[in-house]
Amino acid sequence: MISNKMQTLVANSSTIRAMFEEGKRLAAIHGAENVYDYSLGNPNVLPPDTIKKAIMEILDSENSNVIHGYMNNSGYEDVRTEIANFINKKQSLKLDASSIVMTCGAAGGLNIILKALLNPEDEVIVFAPFFGEYRNYVSNFDGKLIVVPADTTHFEPNIAALKEALTSRTKAVIINSPNNPTGVIYSEEAIKHLAATLEEAEKAFGTSIYLISDEPYREIVYDGAVVPYILHYYKNSFIGYSYSKSLSLPGERIGYIVAHPEMDHFNDMMAALNVANRILGFVNAPSLFQRVIAKCLESEVDVSIYKRNRDLLYNHLVSLGFECIKPEGAFYLFPKTPIADDKAFCEAAKAFNLLLVPGSSFGCPGYMRLSYCISYEQIQRSLPAFTQLAEAYIK
Amino acid sequence: MISNKMQTLVANSSTIRAMFEEGKRLAAIHGAENVYDYSLGNPNVLPPDTIKKAIMEILDSENSNVIHGYMNNSGYEDVRTEIANFINKKQSLKLDASSIVMTCGAAGGLNIILKALLNPEDEVIVFAPFFGEYRNYVSNFDGKLIVVPADTTHFEPNIAALKEALTSRTKAVIINSPNNPTGVIYSEEAIKHLAATLEEAEKAFGTSIYLISDEPYREIVYDGAVVPYILHYYKNSFIGYSYSKSLSLPGERIGYIVAHPEMDHFNDMMAALNVANRILGFVNAPSLFQRVIAKCLESEVDVSIYKRNRDLLYNHLVSLGFECIKPEGAFYLFPKTPIADDKAFCEAAKAFNLLLVPGSSFGCPGYMRLSYCISYEQIQRSLPAFTQLAEAYIK
Repeated sequence: MISNKMQTLVANSSTIRAMFEEGKRLAAIHGAENVYDYSLGNPNVLPPDTIKKAIMEILDSENSNVIHGYMNNSGYEDVRTEIANFINKKQSLKLDASSIVMTCGAAGGLNIILKALLNPEDEVIVFAPFFGEYRNYVSNFDGKLIVVPADTTHFEPNIAALKEALTSRTKAVIINSPNNPTGVIYSEEAIKHLAATLEEAEKAFGTSIYLISDEPYREIVYDGAVVPYILHYYKNSFIGYSYSKSLSLPGERIGYIVAHPEMDHFNDMMAALNVANRILGFVNAPSLFQRVIAKCLESEVDVSIYKRNRDLLYNHLVSLGFECIKPEGAFYLFPKTPIADDKAFCEAAKAFNLLLVPGSSFGCPGYMRLSYCISYEQIQRSLPAFTQLAEAYIK
Repeated sequence: MISNKMQTLVANSSTIRAMFEEGKRLAAIHGAENVYDYSLGNPNVLPPDTIKKAIMEILDSENSNVIHGYMNNSGYEDVRTEIANFINKKQSLKLDASSIVMTCGAAGGLNIILKALLNPEDEVIVFAPFFGEYRNYVSNFDGKLIVVPADTTHFEPNIAALKEALTSRTKAVIINSPNNPTGVIYSEEAIKHLAATLEEAEKAFGTSIYLISDEPYREIVYDGAVVPYILHYYKNSFIGYSYSKSLSLPGERIGYIVAHPEMDHFNDMMAALNVANRILGFVNAPSLFQRVIAKCLESEVDVSIYKRNRDLLYNHLVSLGFECIKPEGAFYLFPKTPIADDKAFCEAAKAFNLLLVPGSSFGCPGYMRLSYCISYEQIQRSLPAFTQLAEAYIK
């Protein structure tokens, strides 16, 4: 029999699966082009051409036992140095390879950070709305997830509520900006306020509280928006970075962790991340793609494609009377559902061939998430369906 | 501060690091060609040329959003089907894609199996000598590792001792054949005896006991030796396979799990593996390399290179009076240490520039492991050092 924890997780995952099957069922009836699946965060913009070029160059010029071989569990030293230098140039910092651990995407990175940090019952704070997987990552190491309720005015971290949530058992706080599901970029002011609050709590409790910034959407930003780099604001900070979205490589599982070089217990922490990468079974981030991204640090996907999608969908929804914060990054909209029951509303939307995810899945009922990383043409085709949905539900 | 569990693990890993640093120190004094590092299991035989060819073909012919994109967490359906068909042909079985989960190597595979299976305090049995990481993998999910003492006559599973170790809490048994560290291939007779014993215990306790066969060395065999395929012998069985050694791709983290289609709770189990792959942060096995190995199923590394190494080193050690079972697979020798204290012996060997791993690291004191996946020339150069070592310690 599968483990007790797993039984619940499998039951939950079959809800997601049911949604997927429903999409297939609708597509069979109405044709795939007439079913509007806004449920998946799978990048549809192509990876830059530099990826293929880099792979070819590496295969032609480097030793295949090195390209495909083991290295230090934290990653190739030269790759880590190049990433540190790249960050230094962009952020005016003085990092070196010792602050970088190559990881199997941000998901791998977050798991090894939590493995390194958590004793059973240690508390990890997240701000609603939040990426639902954090719940599982924290549970993997028997930590306790503490959800700070959403500030639905701006969808910035709710610092007043954070102050209530902090305790002597608080080991870490996870933030995610640009945010999934809102697309909001946390402002510099909010980050400063957050940092000051955590420092106060550290002093009050005599503990170290680690701030973990999950940043797969750092490069997916619009209208010249800037994402504050938390290493400037808080000493006990980690960044979990991923190339899944910034280079459209989600299947390759490549990313890295940056740790603030002045964090408490830095050496122990880096040694623990190294060991955690190994014993959790990652061993190391995939080797070829470590070398590939080192050659593509200046590359970007065409973000204008996502921006065009955002503008089309956001403008239409707002014109219909949906309340929605305008996203500055990522590829999600997070409108308020016209009825309070977001699950019932998303269920009802299926009648219009619209697949939407209830805000409840992100700890924020009364809202819904729309992933607009689908084709522009598909979004265009879906607009009348939203119009009908609004006519049925918005008075 | 890092977690309590991690503090012990970091302390242990610094012992390994100390060995590595010692190797560097000796190399600085004596020259790298005069230091004989038999401590690492890093394949030195090149990957087959078909790997590069397959990568080029895929990059030239497939859509880059598919090659590098998300897929089902269990892996690409077409890749899983091809692997199932390949196994069917070789093993006369009737598997389909539903029995296969693509994983980040065998380490990733073993972790997701244990995540799917274990409740805290569930027991997992291993046979000494065993790959030390099993201890960490079981501990990741709060399982209890039960070590069955070695049968040092043949280094086959010690079934008499297994019978004593089985309890109503036994959830799984891990085997590893060809074995790290002995190079022994468990015989068909041993596997049959093991299977019958587990079936008896299942009946006696009214439980399911899962047999997990860790098989990264399946293809690294000599003199026409055959590795029994456990799906023929035991219903509740998983195989954790990896291309790390069979195609010399350890850095790429690519492998798969095969589950017996008639195992207890098969559907729940496969759903649990899928979820575990996701929530542990693997998400999926690296995408490009899933597609690559599907094109290289018939490929092999040149095993004759390892065989030549084995013969040279084995014959020399035996001629010196070392007691050692002749390995039929993998790339390790596991001789008895001439003095009972294997740690002291390996420490003493450093004076001869020989880096060896004590058998204690594999739950089998009084022995030592030598990894002969280094160059033939380096082994040749090391022979006089072994001669001197034997003169000092073998009477």
